[in-house]
Amino acid sequence: MSEYTITFIKNEQPKEKPDSDHLPFGKFFTDHMFIQDYSEEKGWHNPRIVPYQPLVIDPAAMIFHYGQTIFEGLKAYRTAEGNVQLFRPDKNMERLNRSNRRMCIPEVDEEFAIDAIKHLLHIDQEWVPSAPGTSLYIRPFIIATEPFLGVRPSKNYQFIVILSPVGAYYESGINPVKIAVENNYVRAVKGGTGEAKTAGNYASSLIAQEVADKEGYAQVLWLDGLEKKYIEEVGSMNVFFKVNGKVITPALNGSILEGVTRNSVIQMLKHWDIPVEERKISMEELYDHYINGELEEAFGSGTAAVISPIGELAWNNEHMIINDGKTGAISSKLYQTLTGIQYGTVKDPFNWVVKVK
Amino acid sequence: MSEYTITFIKNEQPKEKPDSDHLPFGKFFTDHMFIQDYSEEKGWHNPRIVPYQPLVIDPAAMIFHYGQTIFEGLKAYRTAEGNVQLFRPDKNMERLNRSNRRMCIPEVDEEFAIDAIKHLLHIDQEWVPSAPGTSLYIRPFIIATEPFLGVRPSKNYQFIVILSPVGAYYESGINPVKIAVENNYVRAVKGGTGEAKTAGNYASSLIAQEVADKEGYAQVLWLDGLEKKYIEEVGSMNVFFKVNGKVITPALNGSILEGVTRNSVIQMLKHWDIPVEERKISMEELYDHYINGELEEAFGSGTAAVISPIGELAWNNEHMIINDGKTGAISSKLYQTLTGIQYGTVKDPFNWVVKVK
Ligand SMILES: Cc1ncc(COP(=O)(O)O)c(C=O)c1O
Ligand SMILES: Cc1ncc(COP(=O)(O)O)c(C=O)c1O
Repeated sequence: MSEYTITFIKNEQPKEKPDSDHLPFGKFFTDHMFIQDYSEEKGWHNPRIVPYQPLVIDPAAMIFHYGQTIFEGLKAYRTAEGNVQLFRPDKNMERLNRSNRRMCIPEVDEEFAIDAIKHLLHIDQEWVPSAPGTSLYIRPFIIATEPFLGVRPSKNYQFIVILSPVGAYYESGINPVKIAVENNYVRAVKGGTGEAKTAGNYASSLIAQEVADKEGYAQVLWLDGLEKKYIEEVGSMNVFFKVNGKVITPALNGSILEGVTRNSVIQMLKHWDIPVEERKISMEELYDHYINGELEEAFGSGTAAVISPIGELAWNNEHMIINDGKTGAISSKLYQTLTGIQYGTVKDPFNWVVKVK
Repeated sequence: MSEYTITFIKNEQPKEKPDSDHLPFGKFFTDHMFIQDYSEEKGWHNPRIVPYQPLVIDPAAMIFHYGQTIFEGLKAYRTAEGNVQLFRPDKNMERLNRSNRRMCIPEVDEEFAIDAIKHLLHIDQEWVPSAPGTSLYIRPFIIATEPFLGVRPSKNYQFIVILSPVGAYYESGINPVKIAVENNYVRAVKGGTGEAKTAGNYASSLIAQEVADKEGYAQVLWLDGLEKKYIEEVGSMNVFFKVNGKVITPALNGSILEGVTRNSVIQMLKHWDIPVEERKISMEELYDHYINGELEEAFGSGTAAVISPIGELAWNNEHMIINDGKTGAISSKLYQTLTGIQYGTVKDPFNWVVKVK
C-alpha cells in the first residue's frame, strides 16, 4: 500500500441533508471527512476518508496553546448537467503551502491534496446542493497535535478536510454591504502573519468586527498596521475600487492575503481591457476621489461571496455612499462572469475549472 | 447544586510519576484535569474535575479555524515542610480576563477559577515534585468549541486546566543565555494582540525562533512592529537591563505582555531602593550604553525560568557580551529572592504566596 493510497471507512449512518433553499453558511457538515497524519519519522502518512466525527485530541496538543495551524477555503459547484466542479484548486493548495512555510508546518503534496479532495467530493457528491447560489464549501486545515507545552514547532500534525453545503455568505446576497474603516485595531503588519491563512489573524480581528457589527456594518476595512493610512483588505475579502474608469486594488505587500478571487478578478479585468492597477492606496486618496465624484464602484472579492459590492464606506465621521448604494456595472459583470464560470454556464477562457470525475 | 459546585470523577488508573530529577518541561501531565463549559444560555457551567483525557471536539470547532483562545501559565511549588503553594495566582486570573476581553471570550469568575485550581492541586498534590528547581506547571486555557465556519465569536467555550510537573525551563538552568535581536519578523503591534496571552502570538513567532535556534541562540528579542527600533520582549519573557546602576525595562505599550514576574521584579527592586524605570528603550540606546561600558546586566523574567540572565545579545553583526557572559549580581539576587519566596525559604514581604488548603 503506497503512502498515497487513501483508505475508506464508509459512514453507515448518513445524515439527513438540510433544505438547500435555506442553507446557512458553515453550519452543516457532510457524512465524511479526510484525515492524514504527520510525524517526523513517517512524514505525511495514513491518508483516510472516514465518517465525519469528532477529533480526539490531547488537551496539551499544541494547537490549543500556541496556535500552529493554517486553513484554506474553496468550493465545489453543481453544474446544470449535474456535474461537480472546482474553481482553481491548485491556487488554494499553493497558498496552503505558503501558509505552511510561514507557520513552520511541514508542506503537503499539492497534487495529492487535490486528489484527496476530489476523492472526498466523489464520496459525498450528493451533498453538493443545486439550488441557485448554493455550493459545497471545502475547508482543508492543518493542526499541530503534539501534546507539549513550550514554544517550538510541533512534531505531529493532522491535515483534515471537511465539507459544508452552503448558501450565500451574506444573507442579503449580491446586495451592497456597508463597511467601516477600522482606525484602532490592527489585523496584520509586515513581518507578521497577514499573508498566511492562519487562525490567529481571524481571532485578532473579532473585536473590531464586533464594534462594527453593533454600528450596523457588515465588516471592517483594515488599514496598514504601521501608519493606519493605506488600505489593506476586508475581513475575508480583498478590495477593489473603480476610479475614473480604472480599477485599483492594494498591492500585495506582505500583510495582505493573496486571494484566489482577487487574482481571478485582475485577470478577468485585463482580459476585458479594463485598466487595473495594484498599488498602495491611502484612505486620503480614496476620499479625494470620492469628493471629486470619481469613485464609481467599490467591491470585495472572496471565495465565500465571490463579489460583494460596497454601498457605503464609513471613515471617521464621513459616510461615503458609493454608486448610490447600488451594485455597479463592473461588480455585477464580474459576479455574473465568475459565478458563471464556476457553475459552468459561461465560457472559461483561462481553464480555471477542474471537473470532479 | 450551585453553579460553583465542582463535580469530581476520580482517575482509577493513576499514571506512574516521572523521575523528578530529570523532568523535561511540559511533557508529562497529571492524573486529573479541570473542565468547565460555556453556552450563551447557561454562561459558565458544569465545573468538573475528571481523569486527564483527550478532548472530543468537532473538526469544525472554531478554535481550529479562527483561533479564538487564550491561556495562562503559573506554578505550584513544594515547600521544605511539604506544603504546596502558589505565587500571585490573582495576577494570572486578572490577565486571563484581560486576554478574554481582547479575544471576545466571555470572562470567568477569577476567584472561582483560583478555587478550582486549588481544588485540582489538592487532588493531584502528589504530583508536585520536590527536587530542587522543580515545580508543577499549571496551564489554564479557554478554547472556542462551537462547530461553525464563519468569522465571528463562538457561542460555546471550554475552560480547561491541566498540570505538568516540570524541571527547569532552560536545560542549562540559571546560566546566561544567548539571545538574537529580530530584525525581520514581528511578534505584535499596537492595536494587535500582543497584550493578550493568545495562541496566535506564539504561532507567529516560531519562524524567527527557528532561525535563531539554528544560529545557536536560545530566543529572539522582539522589537516594536512599527519602527523595529524599540525593545519589546523575549519569546516568553519580559526583559530588563542594568545600566549605570539603574534598571530599565520597556514600558507596557499595548504590544507587550504584562508579565507577573516583570511586575514582581519591579516591586522587589523598588523595595531594595534600586532605581527602576519603565520606558521606551531603543536598540541604539542600548548599544551606546554597551559601547560606553555602561550595560552591566541583562535578564529576562517569566514564570517558566523566573530570571534568565542574558550573556550575549546579537544585533545585526554586533555580538554584545554582557557582564563577561556571566550571571550578574542583581539577576542572581532577584532569582534567589523570587524563587526563595516561591518555595517558602525567604520572607514574603508582599504576601505574594497563596497556600493550597
Ligand atoms: C483575510 C482574507 N482576505 C482575502 C480573502 C479572499 O481570498 P479568496 O479569494 O482566496 O477566497 C480571504 C478569504 O479567503 C481572507 O480570509
Ligand atoms: C510573550 C510573553 N512575555 C512575557 C512573559 C512573562 O510573563 P510571566 O512573568 O507572567 O510568566 C510570558 C510568559 O508567560 C510570555 O508568554
